[in-house]
Amino acid sequence: MIANTNRQIVLAARPVGAPKETDFRLVEGPVPPPAEGELLVRTIWLSLDPYMRLRMGTDLRYYPPIPLGDVIVGGAVSRVVESRHPKFAPGDIVDDYTGWQDYAIAQGASARRVNPALGPLSTAVGVLGMPGLTAYLGLVKVGRPAPGDTVVISAASGAVGAVAGQVAKIAGCRVVGIAGGAEKLRYLTQELGFDEAIDRHTDDLPGALAAACPDGIDVYFENVGGPIGDAIYPLLAHGARVVICGGISHYNATEPPKVASHSRADPLHRDRGEGFNIYSYGAHYEHARKRLARWLGKAGSPSRRTSWTASRTRRWRFSASSTGSNFGKLLVRVSAE
Amino acid sequence: MIANTNRQIVLAARPVGAPKETDFRLVEGPVPPPAEGELLVRTIWLSLDPYMRLRMGTDLRYYPPIPLGDVIVGGAVSRVVESRHPKFAPGDIVDDYTGWQDYAIAQGASARRVNPALGPLSTAVGVLGMPGLTAYLGLVKVGRPAPGDTVVISAASGAVGAVAGQVAKIAGCRVVGIAGGAEKLRYLTQELGFDEAIDRHTDDLPGALAAACPDGIDVYFENVGGPIGDAIYPLLAHGARVVICGGISHYNATEPPKVASHSRADPLHRDRGEGFNIYSYGAHYEHARKRLARWLGKAGSPSRRTSWTASRTRRWRFSASSTGSNFGKLLVRVSAE
Repeated sequence: MIANTNRQIVLAARPVGAPKETDFRLVEGPVPPPAEGELLVRTIWLSLDPYMRLRMGTDLRYYPPIPLGDVIVGGAVSRVVESRHPKFAPGDIVDDYTGWQDYAIAQGASARRVNPALGPLSTAVGVLGMPGLTAYLGLVKVGRPAPGDTVVISAASGAVGAVAGQVAKIAGCRVVGIAGGAEKLRYLTQELGFDEAIDRHTDDLPGALAAACPDGIDVYFENVGGPIGDAIYPLLAHGARVVICGGISHYNATEPPKVASHSRADPLHRDRGEGFNIYSYGAHYEHARKRLARWLGKAGSPSRRTSWTASRTRRWRFSASSTGSNFGKLLVRVSAE
Repeated sequence: MIANTNRQIVLAARPVGAPKETDFRLVEGPVPPPAEGELLVRTIWLSLDPYMRLRMGTDLRYYPPIPLGDVIVGGAVSRVVESRHPKFAPGDIVDDYTGWQDYAIAQGASARRVNPALGPLSTAVGVLGMPGLTAYLGLVKVGRPAPGDTVVISAASGAVGAVAGQVAKIAGCRVVGIAGGAEKLRYLTQELGFDEAIDRHTDDLPGALAAACPDGIDVYFENVGGPIGDAIYPLLAHGARVVICGGISHYNATEPPKVASHSRADPLHRDRGEGFNIYSYGAHYEHARKRLARWLGKAGSPSRRTSWTASRTRRWRFSASSTGSNFGKLLVRVSAE
């Protein structure tokens, strides 16, 4: 049954610093009809991810900004309500960037069919979706972990970091996570199997890292940016790889970010930093998803799932996700599965 | 105590086909005195490796042939008897290519000190020596295994293959070994933890490999050469890596070897074959040895040790090692440790 009204959250103002409730506006309107080749879908799970903050700004180095008044961009798991594309039928589950709304129009040609047998539907935007693929492909294609390597991951309890760390364990590495607060540290070592976890607020981050990485750091999976690199870079081993995946410490910044002051001048050291964006690796998605699904089945969920309902909550939570008070994969449950 | 006589096995004739006893000659002579900077060492363990057969021939693509009448080349673990180099003292254990003799002169500048704490002394020419380093560095640097990859290894029960397979397991891969005979197959899956083992004499090698590698082959670690590639190459996955480490099926050949007839013409497939020789990776030895030693301590010996005494036996065994009747790491124990 289709509701009469579609609720949409649109961008009311470009956030300055952390997003505020007044940066968003709830708009109600009719449920749109699909045209030929399109699908009408009902949103089930909405994914909250750090990149969304960038899309609310005007930094064109990333992706085009969301125009003011437009629906907030976001990945979602949805159920097909009406199909005008031969590949899909009502009831099918799809994964697409349909954004913050109850109902959306998806393109049949580009929507991805979700296989519910692989895991809970929400994993399609978690460990089996963009964050999980980012973790797997960033670690494997750029980080190239060798068995026995020491891998350090920042924002390690986040949706990407948590999966990257678990894949690094599967790859036979020593895995050290950096996160904030005792609960996250416990989660990393007790639930996810990290070898060590270090509090980012510790008085002596360089000392704690050096103690946790006696053979140096072979792979650094960078999710936060900022001055944490000052502790990391001096410990990079010969031939180390730095996967520059994210910089969440900058995303709400109103001034140019403080970056690591340390830079290595020695060409013999052969370490390599590489900016990584999942969208360059589209050819590898299915292959990577298959492996993640296999591991998901084996060793339990590699990603903690947190869920809420209500649009009011989701705005608040989105802000929280950039201030360090949540961890794991952030999701909004918009409707029943 | 130093014996009065040094026994040496020298090359009497270049072998045609498999080496025969008459290709070798036992020579007895005085124990040589070390000059300044040199060490006199007593051989404990002598390593038998396939490359030695190449050195007995005249194929200059490899390394210079052993001159007729010279001591047979080979790696050995020895004890220092007399030192004229400041780095070494009597009683130290060293690893060097000192060849088939009871006593040898080693160069203090190039001999490697063996750390007996890392494992049994014989491992210095096994899992912690050339074969183990070949396995680790060939797999890691050329094969670049990603977690979830399928890795196929030929001559999988040999000194190199057995370690390569175990490192691939540590790296989170599915590992399929090819070897000859039920005992070796059992050894691979029951003792070494390979996922599958295939008999190279099976009637349908392509069919058996396809069944064992449902997602294709991501890494092929080639130790044997010859027509086995006909079964391997059609199964290579997109972007596969072939580590061309050895070709033992050719080493005794008296005619040009039959090679795989299959070759892939599709440039989109992006698989890559790379000849691999450990001596290009000297900078990585200590690093790799440290990891192998760590794993050796954890999970028991990654290499079966076989030992004999008596020079007569060693000649016969050397021949056997190229006909498939032995497996694991082949060693000759020349004297007590």
